Amino acid sequence: MNDSWENLIAGVKNRDIRAAARLITRVENRAPGWKEAMSRIYSRTGSARVIGITGSPGAGKSTLTCAMTKELISRGLTVGIIAIDPSSPFSGGALLGDRLRMKEIFETPGVFIRSMATRGMLGGLCQAARDVVRILDLFGKDIILVETVGVGQDEIEVVKTADLVMVVCMPGQGDGIQAIKAGVMEIADLYVVNKADMPGVDEAVADILAMLELSTETGKPSAPVLKTSALKNQGVKEVVTAFLDHRTDEDRRQAKAEIRAREEILSLLAQEVSGYILKQWENENRFCESVNQVLKKQKDPYAIVKEMTQRFNWS
Amino acid sequence: MNDSWENLIAGVKNRDIRAAARLITRVENRAPGWKEAMSRIYSRTGSARVIGITGSPGAGKSTLTCAMTKELISRGLTVGIIAIDPSSPFSGGALLGDRLRMKEIFETPGVFIRSMATRGMLGGLCQAARDVVRILDLFGKDIILVETVGVGQDEIEVVKTADLVMVVCMPGQGDGIQAIKAGVMEIADLYVVNKADMPGVDEAVADILAMLELSTETGKPSAPVLKTSALKNQGVKEVVTAFLDHRTDEDRRQAKAEIRAREEILSLLAQEVSGYILKQWENENRFCESVNQVLKKQKDPYAIVKEMTQRFNWS
Repeated sequence: MNDSWENLIAGVKNRDIRAAARLITRVENRAPGWKEAMSRIYSRTGSARVIGITGSPGAGKSTLTCAMTKELISRGLTVGIIAIDPSSPFSGGALLGDRLRMKEIFETPGVFIRSMATRGMLGGLCQAARDVVRILDLFGKDIILVETVGVGQDEIEVVKTADLVMVVCMPGQGDGIQAIKAGVMEIADLYVVNKADMPGVDEAVADILAMLELSTETGKPSAPVLKTSALKNQGVKEVVTAFLDHRTDEDRRQAKAEIRAREEILSLLAQEVSGYILKQWENENRFCESVNQVLKKQKDPYAIVKEMTQRFNWS
Repeated sequence: MNDSWENLIAGVKNRDIRAAARLITRVENRAPGWKEAMSRIYSRTGSARVIGITGSPGAGKSTLTCAMTKELISRGLTVGIIAIDPSSPFSGGALLGDRLRMKEIFETPGVFIRSMATRGMLGGLCQAARDVVRILDLFGKDIILVETVGVGQDEIEVVKTADLVMVVCMPGQGDGIQAIKAGVMEIADLYVVNKADMPGVDEAVADILAMLELSTETGKPSAPVLKTSALKNQGVKEVVTAFLDHRTDEDRRQAKAEIRAREEILSLLAQEVSGYILKQWENENRFCESVNQVLKKQKDPYAIVKEMTQRFNWS
């Protein structure tokens, strides 16, 4: 098989799973030509709906993702899953029981699953997630579920790239809800209290509603709060219906899209330019020397960056 | 009071708390001149020991931080606390009971507490944390405790800037330990199982030891595992003694310092460069235009960045 960018892209358009997996790996590794490849893909994307699923560890996000996937498939939709969570069963970081439960999903035709590392991603986690979403979109997936752990700046940035954001909580998670409040609140379109068979479910719902009420005063539209027991497949249909029916206010959608475009351009730009300067410095052996000077306290990082950028005549 | 950079720096050296708070705010806000100020501070830093404290939400990191602070003060050491956690009582994101418990620490002389937002930090959370650590170092703090939530790429990056990393777990947190395993494992120097009065404490210790054993085969030195009940002030003395006595292997310390210097230069560089180019583009109204083209799918972000960088003649 000729693995040129062109062939891989053509393969993805023909719904060839192996081509998709290879294209993703190459783009993730930032193989030379990746930007041109993504440039070509870009205009053909935008038909998939991207659902961000976030929440604190242990809330059952993966189980819920599985249950929702089955429901979506039963409605005749194709699904892509991107898991960005070290503790997710999709990433292999899970207990055996969880992994067995996922097996069914791994073997369902029409489901494409990809897990992504949260660290050391070349060019930033968020950009890599955007790229993978676009490849699955080109593949023709109707729905792309992006699962990330709910606490963490980069992870929240990833979720922001979704069209609709679902926050998953569980009963008895006072601290968890606090963390969510501080971090994910302003981006949530839908709340799900999972493990609804556990005690404290009504308190959890009340906590979220109270939180929403406070913020509604400040202009944030309220979001529905649903209950599920993903393991028992209860309430899952309702959640799927809620997000398929969800229509974002046009002004809000526009504003979101603009912010996303700005942020993407800026992050690509920062990577590109600093990569270029670094390469120049490495060619001249100046980078290693500078690091050594910092270690010996002969120079400081702030002054070195000033030097590095000086040839561009900016201050 | 003359709030020049020079005066603020002199104030911090004289242990003036208000000067420290103002200098931190200015540096966090990236007020013009901040890099020059940090450049001047840099050579005078390096005497404080920086302890990173991380772990999943609800493990009791803040309570432990408080208890350790009291113990450190009783040993005649001065302490600075930097809390980077939306759910931390230090950040105001806590339940009333927690906040009352913290009150004592807030009023203890010799303790400087600063909480930092995890999002929207200009120039990156990690760099801002490095800067605040240096200001507290200049202030003369012997020990700087940096508390962050344990899941999240940026948050892990912050903890990596510490000299010693302490991971806090609690009993019955299977998922929590999984998350830790994937993310923080390779940077942990010391494990603490807090809430040791809860059932399941021995299993939690055993889980960590099993995890450590697996990784020892791959060359990672093992880390001590201690038990505390921070709320009852049990085991805290032992933890403080353990981290004060901890001596990092010289090769490992060197390697860590080099990686930290490299990463800091690169992140400062990326910020500097993209800030500059963005400013140029905004002056020319080209940035807004480009964002609009992306929104209309006339252009894609990858191609726009290529255009933006073309004037520098790189490919």
